[in-house]
Amino acid sequence: MTPSTSQTSATSPSQTTARRVRVEFAGQSVEFGGPGVVVIAGPCSIESESHLLNTGREIAAHGAVLLRGGVFKMRTNAASFQGIGEPAFEFLPRAKSAIGLPLVCEVTDPRQIEMMLATVDMFQVGSRNMYNYELLKELGRTDKPVLLKRAFAATVDEWVNAADYVVRGGNDRVVLCERGIRTFETTPRNTLDLNAVAWLKAHTSFPVVVDPSHGTGRRELVIPMALAGIAAGADGIICEVHPVPDQALSDSAQAIDFKMFEELVRKSRAVAASLDRTLAVLEKGRA
Amino acid sequence: MTPSTSQTSATSPSQTTARRVRVEFAGQSVEFGGPGVVVIAGPCSIESESHLLNTGREIAAHGAVLLRGGVFKMRTNAASFQGIGEPAFEFLPRAKSAIGLPLVCEVTDPRQIEMMLATVDMFQVGSRNMYNYELLKELGRTDKPVLLKRAFAATVDEWVNAADYVVRGGNDRVVLCERGIRTFETTPRNTLDLNAVAWLKAHTSFPVVVDPSHGTGRRELVIPMALAGIAAGADGIICEVHPVPDQALSDSAQAIDFKMFEELVRKSRAVAASLDRTLAVLEKGRA
Amino acid sequence: MTPSTSQTSATSPSQTTARRVRVEFAGQSVEFGGPGVVVIAGPCSIESESHLLNTGREIAAHGAVLLRGGVFKMRTNAASFQGIGEPAFEFLPRAKSAIGLPLVCEVTDPRQIEMMLATVDMFQVGSRNMYNYELLKELGRTDKPVLLKRAFAATVDEWVNAADYVVRGGNDRVVLCERGIRTFETTPRNTLDLNAVAWLKAHTSFPVVVDPSHGTGRRELVIPMALAGIAAGADGIICEVHPVPDQALSDSAQAIDFKMFEELVRKSRAVAASLDRTLAVLEKGRA
Amino acid sequence: MTPSTSQTSATSPSQTTARRVRVEFAGQSVEFGGPGVVVIAGPCSIESESHLLNTGREIAAHGAVLLRGGVFKMRTNAASFQGIGEPAFEFLPRAKSAIGLPLVCEVTDPRQIEMMLATVDMFQVGSRNMYNYELLKELGRTDKPVLLKRAFAATVDEWVNAADYVVRGGNDRVVLCERGIRTFETTPRNTLDLNAVAWLKAHTSFPVVVDPSHGTGRRELVIPMALAGIAAGADGIICEVHPVPDQALSDSAQAIDFKMFEELVRKSRAVAASLDRTLAVLEKGRA
Repeated sequence: MTPSTSQTSATSPSQTTARRVRVEFAGQSVEFGGPGVVVIAGPCSIESESHLLNTGREIAAHGAVLLRGGVFKMRTNAASFQGIGEPAFEFLPRAKSAIGLPLVCEVTDPRQIEMMLATVDMFQVGSRNMYNYELLKELGRTDKPVLLKRAFAATVDEWVNAADYVVRGGNDRVVLCERGIRTFETTPRNTLDLNAVAWLKAHTSFPVVVDPSHGTGRRELVIPMALAGIAAGADGIICEVHPVPDQALSDSAQAIDFKMFEELVRKSRAVAASLDRTLAVLEKGRA
Repeated sequence: MTPSTSQTSATSPSQTTARRVRVEFAGQSVEFGGPGVVVIAGPCSIESESHLLNTGREIAAHGAVLLRGGVFKMRTNAASFQGIGEPAFEFLPRAKSAIGLPLVCEVTDPRQIEMMLATVDMFQVGSRNMYNYELLKELGRTDKPVLLKRAFAATVDEWVNAADYVVRGGNDRVVLCERGIRTFETTPRNTLDLNAVAWLKAHTSFPVVVDPSHGTGRRELVIPMALAGIAAGADGIICEVHPVPDQALSDSAQAIDFKMFEELVRKSRAVAASLDRTLAVLEKGRA
Repeated sequence: MTPSTSQTSATSPSQTTARRVRVEFAGQSVEFGGPGVVVIAGPCSIESESHLLNTGREIAAHGAVLLRGGVFKMRTNAASFQGIGEPAFEFLPRAKSAIGLPLVCEVTDPRQIEMMLATVDMFQVGSRNMYNYELLKELGRTDKPVLLKRAFAATVDEWVNAADYVVRGGNDRVVLCERGIRTFETTPRNTLDLNAVAWLKAHTSFPVVVDPSHGTGRRELVIPMALAGIAAGADGIICEVHPVPDQALSDSAQAIDFKMFEELVRKSRAVAASLDRTLAVLEKGRA
Repeated sequence: MTPSTSQTSATSPSQTTARRVRVEFAGQSVEFGGPGVVVIAGPCSIESESHLLNTGREIAAHGAVLLRGGVFKMRTNAASFQGIGEPAFEFLPRAKSAIGLPLVCEVTDPRQIEMMLATVDMFQVGSRNMYNYELLKELGRTDKPVLLKRAFAATVDEWVNAADYVVRGGNDRVVLCERGIRTFETTPRNTLDLNAVAWLKAHTSFPVVVDPSHGTGRRELVIPMALAGIAAGADGIICEVHPVPDQALSDSAQAIDFKMFEELVRKSRAVAASLDRTLAVLEKGRA
């Protein structure tokens, strides 16, 4: 386990050696932090097994290498749909096999970790839990990679420090995810902060992913901001895809359909190539 | 248990009937939301039994009616002092009796609740945990009052919705605490948002407390902002007091000493009186 | 003329000697920065001579000592009402005499200054012009007091530096006015930043006024935030009053009527008294 | 002159017909809003004729098609270097001819316009003057193109409304420039808001330029954020170049040297090409 002392302050000297983080699945793996840009896609919330299969197969066919999908949702209003919860773990292993992609899934309580370990290939910590240090400490005791979203009002220094809670626990497989910060501007719901992406790539060793779906909250901005994220140096893109976006049970205004996703992947490949990068693929074997 | 439907939206019609929340201790109680302004004081972190006794006796003598003190601290840096933790619960019952005040103490993980129930008279949810809905749901299953701090980038609507997670769980004894929001301004560390206090008093039924210590992060602003909080309509003030502020193990720049605390209470009483209010006292009996 | 070097940096050592600024009118004067809290009131925009007379006489009768009223309005939308402009200067001297109060009026272009000099007793620089350094330099060449509003995203350091543009021009009669900053919170339109008031009183010599009308944008918050401003240490309050607020040509949601203004003055006097201050009066003679 | 009614509200229906704005110079012109991405470069402040010639010839050789350089500088502190001012207009025509590029130059006061008209090919309105409506109205009476920077706390709706002040004056040759907004994050000095760029391209007809120098305030972020700007849909890039950045009289931390500028242009060309765009060139003839 590499010690993480150089990540504990945003003012520490630059690190140019990128940390590489692999997500493993069925004898294959995909790497964050190398030359390939990782495309992660899927629904905001998993609504049912058939919904997940339908979406998952399409995004896999179009070039996604990691499946996203929420089971426990963090909702502002206690009366809103809170995700389908624990019952999802009955069908998730079956669905993953059918789709052929590893799964990144949000954990919202340290007490959920054990139940999720057998099924989830990468833990996601959502924006509202970036400061949930008890949860981060527990994830530091696992050996699964962690996708750590930035809290929507966290400084990059606090974000790197939150990653350090996981690393100090013994798990250095942390990937950071920029998902939009809260500013005075409300035309896009959030302000996707690509400066932070460029800064993290220049000053820390963590792989960085960009979420243009939550980061803007508006469908028409997802493709340009995904491309901008890659140009700013991101190691991956995570976006919400739904067969019929307007019918999504959560965050429907920002989900894109299969056709837009195909365009996103095609243009991402072109922009990545212009910067001497590729789109990452699932490879046989582990790190 | 009163249903909370009217709190679920910031745009709901005004509620003019103030909710009253009592904290009970040793056959006595103190009330939030009535004519008396509640003064809460104590150290940021409890550093030892003698430190707590020393501070607690002084603030009780000067007019505080509720003792604050952290056992589990949320710190940005994983290497910083994290509070003395579980061992504190050995001496806390003894210290409370000696001081003669009820205790409000921060909970940071749902798994701590059971251990704290016997000792803590009011649970505090810190700013970083306002969106920790799993924790809020668990607190909704207890019968202890909850002091819910605003996340430093939460809208008042999200804050009222977070309170609703506790209320819907079955516990409507929620007091809100404004503790400063994050803005572009960094001269004071945070921006204490008294507009939110006035808005909550006009539009919801929750008692509201103001924290001028965290809310400004600067000692010289604590007294004027405490007085401003009372003038804006707050039902209480919570502040950090330390025998020798510059030696505090956490947040030393904002702690005030006993002499400043005496001045704060004296001036608070004068401002409260000018608005036909008093400072709350510990009364015999319960609600 | 006092040199202003100590105001040029927010990190400069504290100044405890308050600067006093007098506004003169018809052989009388009112002082900012002394023991009296100055109440400024009037319409957002002057709509006609009779409208001004009606409002001015009422607010004078209730305790205002300085009349506010805009002639040139800064409006986001080029198609909105831009104020009645230059024709107002025909009736303003007559109206001032009838009302018996000095007038503070916004200047939006250096080319307006000469025309305004004979009529206006205090120049107001609005929030959008705080960074208009060419305008500030010109005001530094006059001998009229200047009420300098904070830009809604200015740090206190930038604000004090803007004041310094006037002072270095040769005019040290500057009063600062906090009028709400722009944050992620949109329930009140702006966030009135009373921390800045307390900070300025602790660290600079400038008198400070609070504008709870623009600062909150909501009528029901005007009185509590005015009182909070006084408790935080403000030397004055400026608020928008209209005979029938819902019919105001600009900013109607935040204007208060005569009855609310009477309540505001009465409560302001009580809070000021609790802090050993009074409400300022127009006095015979000059500084 | 096209009426601008569709730009007056950010909620207006989308406009997909891009407006094209040409800057003319010595029988040539360069176009904003067409297929070519315009590269604008030069010093923050013009320090002397030789300094301008040195920088201008280098950036022209590397692919810049528009020269930037400030004569009147807006500085927070009244004691800072304020630009060389009016004397620059003596040598500017000569320098432009020698360099062979048109000049964009900031105007800070309506009274400067007449003096600048003969020399300046495009007026720049700086961030601090976006709300200076008197200045915008005067620019609406000229026939020169205007580069309108966003105020650092302006919503996109206010920004489009500011552009409308120029358009309604009779001058529809407005190009918008995103230059970073003010947020709680201070690691990069500003937060370059590329969401706004993508939004403006989707919803208005204005050409949009990105300023990664002011937008980040840090040299190492200039290239990645310039590329990200192009990927987000920008029609141009404006950046500060200095022969020896650390010796620049203003904003030295964000200026790049000639070698970095060459890299910026080379990579910008590649990213533009991946999105079927080119870098704009100076063409013979006018629109």
